[in-house]
Amino acid sequence: MILINGKKNPLIEFSDRGFQYGDGLFETIEVIESHPVFLNLHFERLAQGCEKLKISFRSFDLLEQEIKNLTRDQNHAVLKIILTRGSGGRGYQQPAPVIPTRVVSLYPFPDFPVLFETEGIKLRFCSTRLGLNPNLAGIKHLNRLDQILARAEWQSGDYQEGLMLDINNHVIEGTMSNLFIVKENRLFTPKLDLCGVKGIIRQLVFQAAQELGISVTEIHLTKQQCFEADELFLTNSVINLWPVSQLLQENYTPGVITLKIQQWLKDFKAQDLCQVS
Amino acid sequence: MILINGKKNPLIEFSDRGFQYGDGLFETIEVIESHPVFLNLHFERLAQGCEKLKISFRSFDLLEQEIKNLTRDQNHAVLKIILTRGSGGRGYQQPAPVIPTRVVSLYPFPDFPVLFETEGIKLRFCSTRLGLNPNLAGIKHLNRLDQILARAEWQSGDYQEGLMLDINNHVIEGTMSNLFIVKENRLFTPKLDLCGVKGIIRQLVFQAAQELGISVTEIHLTKQQCFEADELFLTNSVINLWPVSQLLQENYTPGVITLKIQQWLKDFKAQDLCQVS
Repeated sequence: MILINGKKNPLIEFSDRGFQYGDGLFETIEVIESHPVFLNLHFERLAQGCEKLKISFRSFDLLEQEIKNLTRDQNHAVLKIILTRGSGGRGYQQPAPVIPTRVVSLYPFPDFPVLFETEGIKLRFCSTRLGLNPNLAGIKHLNRLDQILARAEWQSGDYQEGLMLDINNHVIEGTMSNLFIVKENRLFTPKLDLCGVKGIIRQLVFQAAQELGISVTEIHLTKQQCFEADELFLTNSVINLWPVSQLLQENYTPGVITLKIQQWLKDFKAQDLCQVS
Repeated sequence: MILINGKKNPLIEFSDRGFQYGDGLFETIEVIESHPVFLNLHFERLAQGCEKLKISFRSFDLLEQEIKNLTRDQNHAVLKIILTRGSGGRGYQQPAPVIPTRVVSLYPFPDFPVLFETEGIKLRFCSTRLGLNPNLAGIKHLNRLDQILARAEWQSGDYQEGLMLDINNHVIEGTMSNLFIVKENRLFTPKLDLCGVKGIIRQLVFQAAQELGISVTEIHLTKQQCFEADELFLTNSVINLWPVSQLLQENYTPGVITLKIQQWLKDFKAQDLCQVS
């Protein structure tokens, strides 16, 4: 199911700058019982992305209405929003006026084994390095060749996710998730000032840690620190929180900190679901 | 005029990975009297890009036929080729099988004043910095947010192009062109090992220099070296070669080296036009 600028039509103009240059942004959102989870936070990040890319988009009310129309009667699904600078001519110069393209689409919720959430998943390292781009770091834009090349490195189901390092050999994130490690009851997560995506659940883990009185620090993370961690976990808006049970040959057990954060996220999501939308 | 996978249809599926992630490549080609100039070189670069992005595309003969159909009876135009990984599902993992999308489209040739070619153009610096990505450097992929943000920095016709520095403060290229400087009868151009696009005309300038016995060296170029250059010029497949007459407040005159290279390129293009296609 899909709506492009409000119309049930899976086709876009080839002149759309999303297609021509990856000139846009996206959001991936869990839908539970017709409710797009943490929609306000996703809209906030989308607005920040628009500001960064200088895409003048003010139709968040319209977008929300379209999302409601699409997610009505959905029990459990994944909602993807794409927002581009709209159609334009050849060349990098922006069209005048800019009329952004908004795409809302629904996908079945992935059939993840419950064990991923309770016991944890298996993690590898990717050899594809993330480029450095402080200007675009943090936002969820459509220039995703690094992630595509990294995700193409393994096909088997033996690993659920791959960690990416940047060209300075710092561990940054998974291909589709953010990473946290626990060492001596403190949380650490990579700095995302030069590359990486600042996930919504990552942001909530900071809030959780503060409320739970757990220290959390953004650092330049090394492979060695990952191997030596007491606990590791991954976050994104679809998986929420997956503990890591294995990083290559190293084994881990979901520990107290991981389980506390996971429970906090569940409770916080339950609150979000109670809100009248 | 446009052909998408051979069909006269300006619409693509929203699930095309070009739209979802900028997952593809492009080429921009001058068409003179139905002849796509240096098509073989553009195909070579496209093949190199496919190898880098691991897009399995073998239909170059079909693509060439479609280009011939589209450019027939075109006196002077710009041809743009876009090649993407084709449609896929949500997520970075590649679809199986990959069925690339090929788009060939024609645009009117820009109405550039002759003076740009003879006297030169006015050049500025952009404040948007190019990110560093050695894995993607050189190829003409669809992840072009850096260029878009840079090109959005000026609207007036006072400047025809803007130079971009990388995050290490090296001068790399124009938003849509490669840069050469002349100092003491030697040619210098930025190294493109960390970012930038290796243009077809840039490649031919190396060939020209070799045939003309002019030294050409790839260097880490600074702003200061640009200001102190004897001559500057820009290249791409649409403008071919534009001398720079002004960089901010600094003035330049097209010199002997610039004019020799420009003439060599004209002669080489004339030869290409004589080839039976």
